[in-house]
Amino acid sequence: MTTAGSGVDGALRRRAAAWPVARLGTVGADGRPHLVPCCFALDRDVAYSVVDHKPKRSTALRRLDNIRANPTVCLLVDHYEEDWSALWWVRLDGTARLLTEGPEHEGAIALLRAKYAQYRATPPSGTVVAIDVHSCRTWAAGP
Amino acid sequence: MTTAGSGVDGALRRRAAAWPVARLGTVGADGRPHLVPCCFALDRDVAYSVVDHKPKRSTALRRLDNIRANPTVCLLVDHYEEDWSALWWVRLDGTARLLTEGPEHEGAIALLRAKYAQYRATPPSGTVVAIDVHSCRTWAAGP
Repeated sequence: MTTAGSGVDGALRRRAAAWPVARLGTVGADGRPHLVPCCFALDRDVAYSVVDHKPKRSTALRRLDNIRANPTVCLLVDHYEEDWSALWWVRLDGTARLLTEGPEHEGAIALLRAKYAQYRATPPSGTVVAIDVHSCRTWAAGP
Repeated sequence: MTTAGSGVDGALRRRAAAWPVARLGTVGADGRPHLVPCCFALDRDVAYSVVDHKPKRSTALRRLDNIRANPTVCLLVDHYEEDWSALWWVRLDGTARLLTEGPEHEGAIALLRAKYAQYRATPPSGTVVAIDVHSCRTWAAGP
């Protein structure tokens, strides 16, 4: 599995990598799904996001608690517009790890700051969710 | 629980009800989360979406199989823009039922056609996912 690729799949994966927002799905110990929008950066087959400036504290904890209980996660990147022939999505399924310090945490923050001006203005320092992507599915309505 | 409401919460819920896209999270029998973007319509505390014109067949089946195995779902409506002080989300947690025919199926299609010109042009006829919403959480970065 690689998040790079050729053809339509590859083009969609590159578009998704540059997209500013994704939705992260986790599952609680009780089997309930939990979704949050998040910023993210991709480094080959690892996706990084960070619990950022103004989280709703209970939501940030819920996401992290869920990952501790069940590290299987889903990250969806998609585009909506009124012209439904322009719709597309890229779904990354993987296993999450939580990073609070160390070289990979620092590298993730650097990647996020490279992608987002908002993170350059106010560097985040919270827990990083690192997702080892096992599978990447793409779909597009049009050519 | 009601998806209507007063104050900031109520304003966000009304904004979410009119929003054209949401992301539906389900959980497989294997405990894996699965996310798809979807159109939806709200009728009080029930959210409806339909497997529409050009589904990626395996994805449509996955969503429905997951709901049969575990009806607990999460529907997230959110807004992203570069100005992070304008971010908001509304998360609906509930229990899903699958409708293939009957008055509630017809009512759901009518609601979806009232909300979406695309559905008026090409009426959907597929399985409807009806979500009985038990809890509605809202968040906004700004006032």
